[in-house]
Amino acid sequence: MKLPGQEEFEVSSACENVPTGELDNGTGSGPSPDSPSDIDRGELGVPKDPLLFIQLNELLGWPQALEWRETGRWVLFEEKLEVGAGRWSVPHVPTLALPSLQKLRSLLAEGLVLLDCPAQSFLELVEQVTRVDSLSPELRGQLQALLLQRPQHLIQPTGTRPCQGSAHPREASHSEEAPLKEQRQNPLRRKLPPGAEAGAVLAGELGFLGQPLGAFVRLRDPVVLGPLTEVPLPSRFFCLLLGPSTLGKGYHEMGRAMAILLSDPQFQWSVRRASNLHDLLAALDAFLEEVTVLPPGRWDPTARIAPPKCLPSQHKRILSQLKEVQGPSARHGALAEDRYGHQPQLHSPELQRTGRLFGGLIQDVRRKASWYPSDFLDALHPQCFSAVLYIYLATVTNAITFGGMLGEATSGAQGVLESFLGTAVAGAAFCLMAGQPLTILSSTGPVLVFERLLFSFSRDYNLDYLPFRLWVGIWVATFCLALVATEASVLVRYFTRFTEEGFCALISLIFIYDAVGKMLSLTSAYPIQRPGYPAYGCFCQYPDLGGNESQWMRTEPKDRDDISSLDLGLVNASLLPPPECARRGGRPRGPSCHAVPDIAFFSLLLFLTSFLLAMALKHVKTSRFFPSGVRKVLGDFSSVLAMLLGCGLDSFLGLATPKLTVPSEFKPTLPGRGWLVSPFGTNPWWLSVAAALPALLLSILIFMDQQITAVILNRAEYKLRKGAGFHLDLFCVAVLMVLMSALGLPWYVSATVISLAHMDSLRRESRACALGEPRSFLGIREQRLTGLVVFILTGTSIFLAPVLKFIPMPVLYGIFLYMGVAAISSIQFTKRIQLLFMPAKQQPDLLLLRHVPLSRVHLFTAIQLACLGLLWIIKSTPAAIIFPLMLLGLVGVRKALERVFSPQELLWLDELMPEKERSIPEKGLEPEYSLSGDSEDVSPRWALSGEAGRGGESPFVQESSLKSNLSIKPEDLINTIIPLRSSLTQVH
Amino acid sequence: MKLPGQEEFEVSSACENVPTGELDNGTGSGPSPDSPSDIDRGELGVPKDPLLFIQLNELLGWPQALEWRETGRWVLFEEKLEVGAGRWSVPHVPTLALPSLQKLRSLLAEGLVLLDCPAQSFLELVEQVTRVDSLSPELRGQLQALLLQRPQHLIQPTGTRPCQGSAHPREASHSEEAPLKEQRQNPLRRKLPPGAEAGAVLAGELGFLGQPLGAFVRLRDPVVLGPLTEVPLPSRFFCLLLGPSTLGKGYHEMGRAMAILLSDPQFQWSVRRASNLHDLLAALDAFLEEVTVLPPGRWDPTARIAPPKCLPSQHKRILSQLKEVQGPSARHGALAEDRYGHQPQLHSPELQRTGRLFGGLIQDVRRKASWYPSDFLDALHPQCFSAVLYIYLATVTNAITFGGMLGEATSGAQGVLESFLGTAVAGAAFCLMAGQPLTILSSTGPVLVFERLLFSFSRDYNLDYLPFRLWVGIWVATFCLALVATEASVLVRYFTRFTEEGFCALISLIFIYDAVGKMLSLTSAYPIQRPGYPAYGCFCQYPDLGGNESQWMRTEPKDRDDISSLDLGLVNASLLPPPECARRGGRPRGPSCHAVPDIAFFSLLLFLTSFLLAMALKHVKTSRFFPSGVRKVLGDFSSVLAMLLGCGLDSFLGLATPKLTVPSEFKPTLPGRGWLVSPFGTNPWWLSVAAALPALLLSILIFMDQQITAVILNRAEYKLRKGAGFHLDLFCVAVLMVLMSALGLPWYVSATVISLAHMDSLRRESRACALGEPRSFLGIREQRLTGLVVFILTGTSIFLAPVLKFIPMPVLYGIFLYMGVAAISSIQFTKRIQLLFMPAKQQPDLLLLRHVPLSRVHLFTAIQLACLGLLWIIKSTPAAIIFPLMLLGLVGVRKALERVFSPQELLWLDELMPEKERSIPEKGLEPEYSLSGDSEDVSPRWALSGEAGRGGESPFVQESSLKSNLSIKPEDLINTIIPLRSSLTQVH
Repeated sequence: MKLPGQEEFEVSSACENVPTGELDNGTGSGPSPDSPSDIDRGELGVPKDPLLFIQLNELLGWPQALEWRETGRWVLFEEKLEVGAGRWSVPHVPTLALPSLQKLRSLLAEGLVLLDCPAQSFLELVEQVTRVDSLSPELRGQLQALLLQRPQHLIQPTGTRPCQGSAHPREASHSEEAPLKEQRQNPLRRKLPPGAEAGAVLAGELGFLGQPLGAFVRLRDPVVLGPLTEVPLPSRFFCLLLGPSTLGKGYHEMGRAMAILLSDPQFQWSVRRASNLHDLLAALDAFLEEVTVLPPGRWDPTARIAPPKCLPSQHKRILSQLKEVQGPSARHGALAEDRYGHQPQLHSPELQRTGRLFGGLIQDVRRKASWYPSDFLDALHPQCFSAVLYIYLATVTNAITFGGMLGEATSGAQGVLESFLGTAVAGAAFCLMAGQPLTILSSTGPVLVFERLLFSFSRDYNLDYLPFRLWVGIWVATFCLALVATEASVLVRYFTRFTEEGFCALISLIFIYDAVGKMLSLTSAYPIQRPGYPAYGCFCQYPDLGGNESQWMRTEPKDRDDISSLDLGLVNASLLPPPECARRGGRPRGPSCHAVPDIAFFSLLLFLTSFLLAMALKHVKTSRFFPSGVRKVLGDFSSVLAMLLGCGLDSFLGLATPKLTVPSEFKPTLPGRGWLVSPFGTNPWWLSVAAALPALLLSILIFMDQQITAVILNRAEYKLRKGAGFHLDLFCVAVLMVLMSALGLPWYVSATVISLAHMDSLRRESRACALGEPRSFLGIREQRLTGLVVFILTGTSIFLAPVLKFIPMPVLYGIFLYMGVAAISSIQFTKRIQLLFMPAKQQPDLLLLRHVPLSRVHLFTAIQLACLGLLWIIKSTPAAIIFPLMLLGLVGVRKALERVFSPQELLWLDELMPEKERSIPEKGLEPEYSLSGDSEDVSPRWALSGEAGRGGESPFVQESSLKSNLSIKPEDLINTIIPLRSSLTQVH
Repeated sequence: MKLPGQEEFEVSSACENVPTGELDNGTGSGPSPDSPSDIDRGELGVPKDPLLFIQLNELLGWPQALEWRETGRWVLFEEKLEVGAGRWSVPHVPTLALPSLQKLRSLLAEGLVLLDCPAQSFLELVEQVTRVDSLSPELRGQLQALLLQRPQHLIQPTGTRPCQGSAHPREASHSEEAPLKEQRQNPLRRKLPPGAEAGAVLAGELGFLGQPLGAFVRLRDPVVLGPLTEVPLPSRFFCLLLGPSTLGKGYHEMGRAMAILLSDPQFQWSVRRASNLHDLLAALDAFLEEVTVLPPGRWDPTARIAPPKCLPSQHKRILSQLKEVQGPSARHGALAEDRYGHQPQLHSPELQRTGRLFGGLIQDVRRKASWYPSDFLDALHPQCFSAVLYIYLATVTNAITFGGMLGEATSGAQGVLESFLGTAVAGAAFCLMAGQPLTILSSTGPVLVFERLLFSFSRDYNLDYLPFRLWVGIWVATFCLALVATEASVLVRYFTRFTEEGFCALISLIFIYDAVGKMLSLTSAYPIQRPGYPAYGCFCQYPDLGGNESQWMRTEPKDRDDISSLDLGLVNASLLPPPECARRGGRPRGPSCHAVPDIAFFSLLLFLTSFLLAMALKHVKTSRFFPSGVRKVLGDFSSVLAMLLGCGLDSFLGLATPKLTVPSEFKPTLPGRGWLVSPFGTNPWWLSVAAALPALLLSILIFMDQQITAVILNRAEYKLRKGAGFHLDLFCVAVLMVLMSALGLPWYVSATVISLAHMDSLRRESRACALGEPRSFLGIREQRLTGLVVFILTGTSIFLAPVLKFIPMPVLYGIFLYMGVAAISSIQFTKRIQLLFMPAKQQPDLLLLRHVPLSRVHLFTAIQLACLGLLWIIKSTPAAIIFPLMLLGLVGVRKALERVFSPQELLWLDELMPEKERSIPEKGLEPEYSLSGDSEDVSPRWALSGEAGRGGESPFVQESSLKSNLSIKPEDLINTIIPLRSSLTQVH
């Protein structure tokens, strides 16, 4: 489930994946499954500049004991040497004082700048750099010796694995100076991608120099400069900043300034292409133009800023520069062009109407077929094992719970065995054939409600239920096939976030309600002994009064209970526990013979323990404790571990808690029927036609239930690569409908909560490679195997009773509660409900709240709550038959909201319906542009990282959904803008 | 307890209270009890500059519909108008682009600068500002009309109370233009302190101007400028930035830059004293010199930075400027001077040795006497009510628990009644007389261990216990008085954080151990029914076999149990519950007649519920939900609410859980003794002399126990104003020692955990006044009344049995657990233990870790853990008699650590012992200065706000303790530096 973690989904979908991109050197093999976005490959497909590792070596100890020491390093963020602690600091956003940048600029302007220096070794480089007029030959010698002195590196041994999967160290064969062993063993090296280059900044106070000495070198061919850098990377840049002590700490700060400049992607880009000093200084000035300035009175310059969750978008930087050159119309133009111009790319291909009968289905099959082999190969990962365990247990519990409810609803026409068999057959078939194999099929609440109504109708009119049901199923399948044929699934574009979240909230609430309800029902099964009630008391009475006396009088010495009976002077009864009593031929008599004490509260404890433990373990993943591997295992297996702990606790105390039981015999629950349902039974023939009426309602329900779930599962924020298959999914559901009806098994559609849990247990995340880089969400392990194995296991569970009997039901209810809570807390709707309870001052700085008046936000939430309440009420009353229509009504309510809310507001609160998409740029966005100033106030889809500075908050409004076709694809952006940009700034 | 919140303690003690200070206008009545620090009154006692409220009015709608709209405001932080949402943004640290500052500078340099402008109204001001050559008379008229146009303000109604307690609005009587009603009703106004001034910045694009128009005005007398600002404050500054549209958004950004400049305290200081344009530009340049620069590639300029917990220290800024002028030696000199120069102020007055007999005691009494009336008046606050309830319940539970343990330990020589009576008498007496009336007396674990040993000794040698104990008590009192006379308490300076935290951890662990142990012992009292065990069974047997048959055969129709008996064919027994059975003259017989089912698990549930609820409610205080008033109540009453909920749950289910019971009769537990212990009893006379030997050990224990607790309670981080009274406290303990021994009541010393809980329930916190200002901890409500009432209530509880019997013991154990957990999680030791489980990469960015190698930190923690383990083992074995010596040994271990750790390391990990304080500046700090660069790397006591940017973390190493005399007092700093500073920068 781990929809608590969905926030990360949102953040990562909101950020462009810049960090990973920057590490991705682009010389690889193209779009491999592990690097789904090739956005970052750079301009027009040209590989990006290599990653730069920058190191600051500082000259310390003037005048007595001169030595070079590495005191800072930069990849994405700054790490400072903590001298006292002998460790690297936490990576942080580098901060500078403005004067040091200005001093650096003037030193560079007067100093030596060598671009494309042909030096092949450090020695050559040092000779070139010290060839300055101001130095006497004697001083030059001294300086050269000093520069060649080996610097001190702090190398922290850490057990890190290589980042890019390839552990082959790059052989720096073209270098004359072999790297030292110390350098080669540096674990940091394995964290840098192959192809990375180094930049070395040497700075410090050197008293014998008459005047400051500044030199900046770009090497033509990167060379490993001996022991200069702590990792044996070929160096591309070299910068020397030395001088007399008049500047004090100035050289340290100037050195940092140089390093920070080099670590800036834009500056690096320019300086790699600079042809003279002027270009270098222009790049520095361009950097200065763009820096963010914090006032000294409100920000302590020594405070360290944690790396933001999202790095600033380089597109945005390019864009803002472009805007300055071309005026505001350029950006707007790009936006508009994309909105109108590329119409064919506006919707994801799954939702394009082909206009042919079954056209969508055929397309789905074609598209999915190409992924079919990978659907099995991609499952070869240990994470899938955890997913199978977790989802298997959830599915089995669901099958048992639902089987019980079904048995109740149909008075035994169907039961637990049907539920098991149906789940296994339908689930496995779906996983093998469906468009979205991550879906877990289940008999969901709404369908069960419908079945209950159908059964009571057929009982009231003395109909033969299963044959009647068969016809309903056949009709539903027919209607669904019609929907597939007409490509009706493209209408899911009308299911906006409003509909999705309303439905998801309803299903989650049903989950929570059922979990808690089932738990509480245990307290009626195992009543609590209150003081007023009769004491637990149970005699063991022997059948023939006085007859067997001699038999148990003989056992006196070894049996305490017998002694107790003896004491009492009784001869025909004892206090033996009921099972023992029965074994000895007695009969338990008394008010409490069937009551088991302590079970109710112990069950409650188990329930709470497993729920809270699953929640807590999930949070371990983001805590500071334990190595990342351990954290990941604990997080991934949280539900399984919570379940195991619950089972352990239960078997440790050995109480008779209710356990998971599966039927022991393999035959239909309804006595006397075979596995195939006869088509008519005792029903009149015309009932097979009349069944079309309820089937119509059920079809709506099935369509809504199936497709809303599919829309939720296929949201863009999950970064699915293999695409959806709405038509194919519906087709499978229709086929299974007939099969299930014919076998008298339950009906199945996609289950939102368990499917989300399934996806969540298959999340792929990048390991943080560059220092300080946040983990990013890469996607889901899309494959068919986990689902298939889950359902095969479910099928075999019919025969697994001896193993499953160790699992107490309260533990499973606890995990159910966890799944429901996780699902409901993942949706934006819940966060808006929370806003209702926060005073305006305390509300998180959400983009949504920056653009929509609070009262409007609350109104929207209230309407959604009202819809939810109405749905819940309808579901619980006899009016439940119109529930499918009401679900459809959600779309209507959303449509009506267009009269209440402006398109601009709906764009932030929800998303736009298809026909409104076209009208928004003119109406909605204009006032926003003209009025408020900063570049942050662009359209919702553009404002991707507005909350980076806030840390904890999730900018949930930024989520793009499946229909994020509204938004502009970064590729398009790059293709539009980069040519302009390069023509403007590229020098050679 | 709320030592979870101690982090806030630390942060607030680590920050200087700048925000509150800036709001404190200094024209008040001097050091009132509510403004404990008058540090912030400014330089040399001169009142500080008034607070400035700055507002940016932007000209929008060119060319069609020109209007002024307020789009930003600043007090401490920036609030931006969210145009779409119609609300003010969350306050955030303002950020700027560098070019806008540069553009502003050039506009000001060419523009109009009026310093000490005599305008008395907005009209006059506008006339003066528009008197520019470049404007034609016609344009001037247009411009004047435009400027006088009424601006649009967004006034958010919020139910805020006035900030400073005084709700008297300042009458702007000297202004001609009366403020509008809208302005007067602005709730923001009440958040600004009296005396605040306004600054107005007007910026925007005005196409009809030929060239940019810039004007900066400082008014001689601040004037309310009509409806210009949203609050009717007299304006001091006025800035106009208008121009043609060539600059695009430039005017908005320039306006922001001007506003941010004005909100900077240093710039404001300079500009208030500037005499010409040159001074103004110099101030701007000084600002630029100090800004913090964030690189564009690593920081998104549109990200909003949340206000830091601590504002940057203005002292530090002055200091760094001073350093630049005078070179690095100046700072160091100031440090050294303070360390050596002001020897008499080095230690807090309580710990100065007077050299006279009882000199310390007399001083304590004198000092405390002056606060005595306020010790009762200061208690008049609703928070005290919550504190009384909470601490009363904790004390009563403690008294009962301890009474029970005492009864066990002394085989009934003392018991629960003695515990109640003793607690009431000793506690109340101590609260009335002691030096630190926040202390809650209790019979602590170590003393109980000692008493147990004493009792078994006297039993082994057939001694009369209570008389023997009386003599021990008399000797202890004598020794303690000797310690008071010789002012031995000044030795507490040797109790460093190492000793304090070792002791505190031990006591907290005992608390947790007892709570959990008592809870688990309930499961033996109410055993769980496992399947293998005999069933709950209990006959009701009638005494005369067959005799009373007719009697109960008659009740047949109305009694189910009788029917059951009848069924069974029994005549002399039934299944009546035991109490009913006894009532009817029967006798319950069987293995389970005294067992009550369900109690064990229900107790566990109650225990966990109350513990978790108390924890959760405490966190509500810092959550985003509910208005601040509600949050505060929930947080303050968390323990009481958790207890009430536990009691409610218990009485709702009505189970027979064990309840709080107090003895019903008022007489000594030992039968046959009166309230006064006879001095000899049956003991030989020489025993009264021999009692001196155990008394010596007990004296050490009492001294350590009492004084370590006193040191912990009197830590500087609690910001106590009324000072400690170590000598007086010990004197009171000695007197009570004799009294308690003579009455045969338990012995009492200060209890760490409950006293900390008491202090915590009396925390005073500032309401956040300026927008975005963090709440700060102001101190503790120091008074004698809460303690007194608690102990009076405890005394009367002897007669309150009917009320107290509703409180289930498991609930109280849960609260005990909460107190123990809260106490142990508040100490740095715990945080260092957590570090053991964090990989280095994941560790928080603590100052401690920046300066001490991780292996050394872990070594220190390991030694502390070993000491704790050893103490625990000794406490639990027969060797417990030497426990007092081992406690003293902690100080020795700490002394020995000086051979293992460098003074520099100990300064960060612990603090220095008295004789080392002098040697540290030469040895320890030098290398730090010479090597690492940034100004953050100063001595531990200087680095006050190193973690401001990290948000969640607490920079715990920065805590100053009672002995923070090591550190430099900000007053001294100001007195040393300000004259220099003013001579350097003051212009007129």
